[in-house]
Amino acid sequence: MGPLLRTVELFYDVLSPYSWLGFEVLCRYQNIWNINLQLRPSLIGGIMKDSGNKPPGLLPRKGQYMANDIKLLRHHFQIPIQFPKDFFSVIIEKGSLSAMRFLTAVSLEHPEMLEKASRELWMRVWSRVKFSSEIPIQYHAAAEKAGMSAEQAQGLLEKISTPKVKNQLKETTEAACRYGAFGLPITVAHVDGQTHMIFGSDRMELLAFLLGKLKIQH
Amino acid sequence: MGPLLRTVELFYDVLSPYSWLGFEVLCRYQNIWNINLQLRPSLIGGIMKDSGNKPPGLLPRKGQYMANDIKLLRHHFQIPIQFPKDFFSVIIEKGSLSAMRFLTAVSLEHPEMLEKASRELWMRVWSRVKFSSEIPIQYHAAAEKAGMSAEQAQGLLEKISTPKVKNQLKETTEAACRYGAFGLPITVAHVDGQTHMIFGSDRMELLAFLLGKLKIQH
Repeated sequence: MGPLLRTVELFYDVLSPYSWLGFEVLCRYQNIWNINLQLRPSLIGGIMKDSGNKPPGLLPRKGQYMANDIKLLRHHFQIPIQFPKDFFSVIIEKGSLSAMRFLTAVSLEHPEMLEKASRELWMRVWSRVKFSSEIPIQYHAAAEKAGMSAEQAQGLLEKISTPKVKNQLKETTEAACRYGAFGLPITVAHVDGQTHMIFGSDRMELLAFLLGKLKIQH
Repeated sequence: MGPLLRTVELFYDVLSPYSWLGFEVLCRYQNIWNINLQLRPSLIGGIMKDSGNKPPGLLPRKGQYMANDIKLLRHHFQIPIQFPKDFFSVIIEKGSLSAMRFLTAVSLEHPEMLEKASRELWMRVWSRVKFSSEIPIQYHAAAEKAGMSAEQAQGLLEKISTPKVKNQLKETTEAACRYGAFGLPITVAHVDGQTHMIFGSDRMELLAFLLGKLKIQH
C-alpha cells in the first residue's frame, strides 16, 4: 500500500491575520506533506460569540503585541502582511460577514479559485492594497485578480445573499465550533483515524509531527 | 571581533505550563545559540491583573483545548508535562505567590541552582510528582532534589517572607509588564541594540530567526 493522502481542513476568516499565516504555510506545504488540503471559509464573529471569547486586539497590551508580532512574522514567513492603520474601523467595526459569504460563494461555484480569491482578500485587508468601502467594487477587483471573468465575478456577487451561501457559511462556522474553536484559524488534521484540532498559525511543526504518522499514546 | 554573547531573559511562573515548555527549549538551546540566558521568576497573577487579561483556562473551550494541546506537546517536546487532575484547586485557587517567592529567594541566594529548582517545582505542579499542600515539605523536597543541602533549603524557606525577596519578585513582575506582558512566559531578546519581546512558547523559530543577526526593517 502507498502512503495515505491525509485530509487537513483549514477554517479561516480574512479578518484574522494569523489565519493568513496558517493559510500560506499550508498552501506551501500541501504537496511536500502530501495532504488533501480543504479550505473552509468561516465567520470569526460567530465563533467568538459561540465560545464566549473576545478578539485579542481589544485588550490594549495584546493589541500592541500583535502589531509588533506581525511586523516580525512578516519577515520570518515572507508574507507581505501589515497591520492596517485604521485597524478598528477595518477590522472591528466592519466585520467580515460579506467577505466570508463571498468566499463561501466562490467555494461553492468555483472551488478551484478559492485559494487565490482568499489571498486577494487578505491582500486587501492586511496588506498594501487598500480595502475599499465600496463592497461590490472590492470583490470585483479581488475576483478578477484571482483569475475570474467579469461575468463570473458578477455571478458570485449575486449569490452572496442567497440562502444556500448563507447556510453554508453558518454550517462551516458551526463545524469549527464543534471541533472546539474559540478563534481562528484552526487546522483539523485527520490522521490514522484520529482527529487533531490545532489552534493558530504557530503549531505548524506540531502538525508536521502529527503527519509523521507517529501514534500518540493516550 | 568574535560573535557577541546576546542576552535573552525568560520571565516565567511555575503555574504556567507554556512557561515550562519555553524554559526547557531555552535551557536546551542556550549553548547552541550562544546566548546568555537570564531566568526571571515572575508572578503571573500580577501580570494578569496589571494587563486586564484573564487566565486562558477560565474559558471552557480554551481550557479543553489546552488539555489536548499539552497532551500533544508532551510528545513533541519530550517534556513529561501533564494536566493536573485537580486543575482548579492546584492552579487557580492555590496560586503561585509562595512558589515564586521561593524561586526568587533561590535566584538571590543560589542563582546557580535556579534552573534545577524551577524544574523541580514544575515537576510537582505539572507532572507526576504530587503537589503537596504542606508548603514547607514541598519546597524542602524540591530544593534537595535540585542539589541543595537541608541547611540551604531551610535558609531559603526562612527568606521567603523577607522584604528583599518580596520586593525582588514585585520588581521582576513589573519589569515583565513594562516589556508588554499580558501573560507568561515572555522571552525578551536583546539583539544588536534592539529589544524584542516574544510571548508564549511557540515562537522559538522566530527567536532563532532574530538571533540570526538579521536586521529587521521597520
